[in-house]
Amino acid sequence: MAVSSEPGITFDELRLAARNHGMPLEALRWSLTPAGMHYLLIHYDVPLVDPAGFRLDVRGAVAQPLALTLEDLRARPAVDVVATFECAGNGRALLEPRPVSQPWLNEAVGTARWTGVPLAALLEEAGPSRDAVDIVFCGLDRGVEGELEQRYERSLPLAEAMGAGCVLAYEMNGSPLLPQHGFPLRLVVPGWYGMTNVKWLTEILVLEEPFTGYQVTSGYRLRQTEEEEGQPVTRMRPRSLMAPPGIPLFETRDRVAAPGPLLLEGRAWSGRAPIARVEVSVDGGETWADAELTREFDDPHAWCAWSFLWEATPGDHVLCSRATDETGDTQPLEAEWNLGGYENNAVQRVNVRAR
Amino acid sequence: MAVSSEPGITFDELRLAARNHGMPLEALRWSLTPAGMHYLLIHYDVPLVDPAGFRLDVRGAVAQPLALTLEDLRARPAVDVVATFECAGNGRALLEPRPVSQPWLNEAVGTARWTGVPLAALLEEAGPSRDAVDIVFCGLDRGVEGELEQRYERSLPLAEAMGAGCVLAYEMNGSPLLPQHGFPLRLVVPGWYGMTNVKWLTEILVLEEPFTGYQVTSGYRLRQTEEEEGQPVTRMRPRSLMAPPGIPLFETRDRVAAPGPLLLEGRAWSGRAPIARVEVSVDGGETWADAELTREFDDPHAWCAWSFLWEATPGDHVLCSRATDETGDTQPLEAEWNLGGYENNAVQRVNVRAR
Repeated sequence: MAVSSEPGITFDELRLAARNHGMPLEALRWSLTPAGMHYLLIHYDVPLVDPAGFRLDVRGAVAQPLALTLEDLRARPAVDVVATFECAGNGRALLEPRPVSQPWLNEAVGTARWTGVPLAALLEEAGPSRDAVDIVFCGLDRGVEGELEQRYERSLPLAEAMGAGCVLAYEMNGSPLLPQHGFPLRLVVPGWYGMTNVKWLTEILVLEEPFTGYQVTSGYRLRQTEEEEGQPVTRMRPRSLMAPPGIPLFETRDRVAAPGPLLLEGRAWSGRAPIARVEVSVDGGETWADAELTREFDDPHAWCAWSFLWEATPGDHVLCSRATDETGDTQPLEAEWNLGGYENNAVQRVNVRAR
Repeated sequence: MAVSSEPGITFDELRLAARNHGMPLEALRWSLTPAGMHYLLIHYDVPLVDPAGFRLDVRGAVAQPLALTLEDLRARPAVDVVATFECAGNGRALLEPRPVSQPWLNEAVGTARWTGVPLAALLEEAGPSRDAVDIVFCGLDRGVEGELEQRYERSLPLAEAMGAGCVLAYEMNGSPLLPQHGFPLRLVVPGWYGMTNVKWLTEILVLEEPFTGYQVTSGYRLRQTEEEEGQPVTRMRPRSLMAPPGIPLFETRDRVAAPGPLLLEGRAWSGRAPIARVEVSVDGGETWADAELTREFDDPHAWCAWSFLWEATPGDHVLCSRATDETGDTQPLEAEWNLGGYENNAVQRVNVRAR
């Protein structure tokens, strides 16, 4: 019960960790993440929205601005998409030195079925100008970040926004959005990291010049120094996770299991291409063997299930899995550092004692 | 973005904080906490339960052991209770020195309407022996804690278990329990700290001697040293919390608001008696004024709402609230330390800059 004197997580980080939460890794056993187990990253506060007063405005460089109520949106043809979401900062707390922000380990992930209006159809109706370049998505949530007072806003290039798959969702797993998942409306962009899926969406703004808001020019960029412009964070890199086998030690979350055959199970995804392969290592990444893959959803950016039958011998083991997508991109064994702590898709390590 | 060198939260604590989550404090604006915003403390793993195979056994020192399916339970007369739950470890991370376990700040709380079978009726049917003293409630979740392999088990004295208000709940806010809240069945004991509300309840065991399981003899005891036997943690002490006003700074969760009239709002509860009074301080606890109380629920251990109109002057302020219950117990300004970090109901402090 003694307090360690190692340099640890700061109270600023703890305040974020106490409200933003990961998906408990045993939830990898569910193909769709149950409400409340899906990860959540909320930059500011969850707003309390009166759905009767809600409007979505589509404006800016468009032929026909739109102002739509929730009923207007629900009256339109609806589509479903199953999408795995992952926070761009997943794995941040495992980087050294550790970038100070929400201190995710491996668990900032979740998969849901989203129902709503195809974004492309709505944009076509508004008619973006021929010079349109960026579409900005504005949430109702406000805060101060990087010393700037702002509402949460992210942009997509026009071609991405008009692409197949983007949905203005009002349902999650068949129920109205929960407040913390963006009630009454959010953007869903399958394949992109989670910050793209703007919650409490209230305005879509068509710009004829590149968007320069905080969350695309300061936040969510891959760079080594503050001075560097860097590259934007976009689509999810391949990642796999394992539902930790056996039972946990309360204090460390390490695992204990009986020796003998043990079915290892998990899920894998990529925002860039379908998953081609998942491998498992039971010796901390020294040697690898192929896991069996099961595609449960047609949607290309929904996770797929994997399993691997392991014969556990008595002793301590470090279990790993690694995914490769159809572009050939594979999870690295060691984390690749950047200033904001984004896109750390290094393989998970699960400590198991078989006894 | 630099990493602080202060002794901070350890990785053991972070692993717990990444999966157990608090209620974001803005959720104090909802009278019933929406699914997924209610706090969660899960000692081991969330089990994946097949409801068709589920049984509740009532056995031990009883005249008539029972084995009930979920359908059997749902066929019985049902009751509703609105109860505020709070983790006994809420406030632990604010203690100095900090007991190492789940590092809660202030947010391990939530309120729901629970529906199910009255516990007393079921116990009466089973017929506890005249020598029965403790009723043990056993969950399906297993793990290793304090070096002991165990399933999660907590007991109540017979008189508490037979008292009004204890429910074997299969619904939360009108929907089947979510997996992480104990699907398909959990115990609800209004007024007691959260560890009492055993999730994934599968067995009720009537004992003629005191229960000596880990979670009542080692865990959840108020003591200053490991050697001391201490007192058990039982009912919730009075506490109030404020929905932080204005908008947050991402990095610190401190608040910014415009000067002028600002309605401060929050909720207050006690597991020992109804709330008699909530006071607000806008100067860090130097001076206090009464808030207005609104009782929304008849249930004595559901929280009540409070509000206070503050005229914010430009500058930095520390806002506090403190609750007093009808026993006269009041929240302290300073935390009272104990080894396990339980029952820290010291007043919350909210930093606000009016500008």
